[in-house]
Amino acid sequence: MFAAGIDIGGTYTKVAIISKKGKIAARSLFETKKFGRFDLWVDKSLSVIKALMELRNIKRNEFAGIGVGAPGHIDSVNGVILALVNIKGWNDVNLLDEFRMRINVPVFVDNDANMMALGEYAYGAARGTRNAVCITLGTGVGSGLILEGKLYRGSFMAGGEMGHMPINVNGPACACGGKACVEAYVGNKYIVRRLIRLFGRHPGSVLEKKFKGRFGEITPKDIAMAANKKDKLALKIWEDTGKYLGVCLAGVVNLLDPEIIVIGGGVAKAGKLVFNPVKKTVRQRVMQVYRHRVKIVPALLGNDGGIMGCAWQVFEKGRA
Amino acid sequence: MFAAGIDIGGTYTKVAIISKKGKIAARSLFETKKFGRFDLWVDKSLSVIKALMELRNIKRNEFAGIGVGAPGHIDSVNGVILALVNIKGWNDVNLLDEFRMRINVPVFVDNDANMMALGEYAYGAARGTRNAVCITLGTGVGSGLILEGKLYRGSFMAGGEMGHMPINVNGPACACGGKACVEAYVGNKYIVRRLIRLFGRHPGSVLEKKFKGRFGEITPKDIAMAANKKDKLALKIWEDTGKYLGVCLAGVVNLLDPEIIVIGGGVAKAGKLVFNPVKKTVRQRVMQVYRHRVKIVPALLGNDGGIMGCAWQVFEKGRA
Repeated sequence: MFAAGIDIGGTYTKVAIISKKGKIAARSLFETKKFGRFDLWVDKSLSVIKALMELRNIKRNEFAGIGVGAPGHIDSVNGVILALVNIKGWNDVNLLDEFRMRINVPVFVDNDANMMALGEYAYGAARGTRNAVCITLGTGVGSGLILEGKLYRGSFMAGGEMGHMPINVNGPACACGGKACVEAYVGNKYIVRRLIRLFGRHPGSVLEKKFKGRFGEITPKDIAMAANKKDKLALKIWEDTGKYLGVCLAGVVNLLDPEIIVIGGGVAKAGKLVFNPVKKTVRQRVMQVYRHRVKIVPALLGNDGGIMGCAWQVFEKGRA
Repeated sequence: MFAAGIDIGGTYTKVAIISKKGKIAARSLFETKKFGRFDLWVDKSLSVIKALMELRNIKRNEFAGIGVGAPGHIDSVNGVILALVNIKGWNDVNLLDEFRMRINVPVFVDNDANMMALGEYAYGAARGTRNAVCITLGTGVGSGLILEGKLYRGSFMAGGEMGHMPINVNGPACACGGKACVEAYVGNKYIVRRLIRLFGRHPGSVLEKKFKGRFGEITPKDIAMAANKKDKLALKIWEDTGKYLGVCLAGVVNLLDPEIIVIGGGVAKAGKLVFNPVKKTVRQRVMQVYRHRVKIVPALLGNDGGIMGCAWQVFEKGRA
């Protein structure tokens, strides 16, 4: 059996046909904004699925359904996109109905960070655990919780927003309307902003020289490259980033007692630069009982966690 | 049917016989330390249960079993007290075996904050909800989580320790070995400590005059009384206490998306003094979707939450 996993991104929509064992049989992507009206987007998605199935000779009776992950507040029971980050005009869209008008297979719509968590739980780093916290570090800090072997959605379908847990009583304003949220310390642009602010106090950074007059172009990847070349300021930025994330995770561990924390996303590609201070901070600050128990590991599925979770959702829920 | 609820405290052990509907039929207490050896403590507990049953004419076949709540790290599957706060010599005690050697009824042993949460969920303020966070404010900050209609225990039976979530990156050392945990801001002695530290900067507090030379005797109750008489420093202490707790709760709400937060324990008796700033801070700092949804309410069962939860545990689990 196969399922389609669709990951709606602000820039690209990814579509993949995935086997029950978690193998990607075929994949493609298209620009989300070229099909910005959601009815056109659904048409396009279905035509891509059809083409991919033909490409791999997958028959209709081998196709279990479609899972969609979207970056926003999703009513997963009714398949409604309540509010979407980055894509205009998609608020209060019943995506489930849109699909159902066109195709007669099970369709599931959910939050993309939840789908990533489910992907890592079903096919990735959190496989075989019962309680897992999965995080994507990028522009924002997305996260999903697997509790007692199930995706935890919360009371109003809005649970798992670890990125918006405060790590300080006072601190920078966050895009969510809150203050001192961990995302306002470790989100992409905040990392870069902290670097730029520290140029004055730490003269001689290779990054200051290299990006003179165009600081706005600096990315976390550049900071990671500089750190790997032992640039002191870049090293400090990663040390601090890991520490901030670690403080938040220490609280999450004391609250939820998970077996494993899975960290993925662009920023996680900095590897040890971020994992080492995260692990150190968590070990220092969690209660003794957890100190040597909770595992902190990189995501295994990279950018495919979301589409894998979408497919698994179809296989699991489709059974019922 | 009736069950016995036993709440082991550092000072007193409370024993009650409770009906399935949550009515306390009879109750008693004894000094825990007078029966400090756990085998003597079990003998005493059973003799109190027996006496209470005779008092109310409850027959053996109307007795469903015993639930025990203890302040520490408990292995609730095997009924083992792994580590206990405040009571020496009770580490690695299999309380379940001790009871079973003496009586043939179902016995359950669990963490006392978990039992309080279960009590509020079954008979108190969180009745009818699916996701609830229950907190006791006292010497420490105890808490228990009801998620998807079930007590959430975590992977190593140590979940729900909201008191040890950091609310600042830097901050005071906490008794748990961590740093800047919310308990180190809103636990009894920390509230008093903050007051004393602020006497210098806020001269004229009625508390400074009243307790001159014996600041160590000040309790949160005294601070509440002074605040109710509009003492400015006392008002500030409660405002800050509520704010610190609110910052922590904002994070918990964004992470777990609960319907309700139930707050009990001695410090909660300060009422609006602490509830108002907690509510204000949570509303200011949580994501918009929760702002007017999550309820923050006082516990309904007072100090009986724990024994009520113990009894409910017997009625629920005893069925299986």
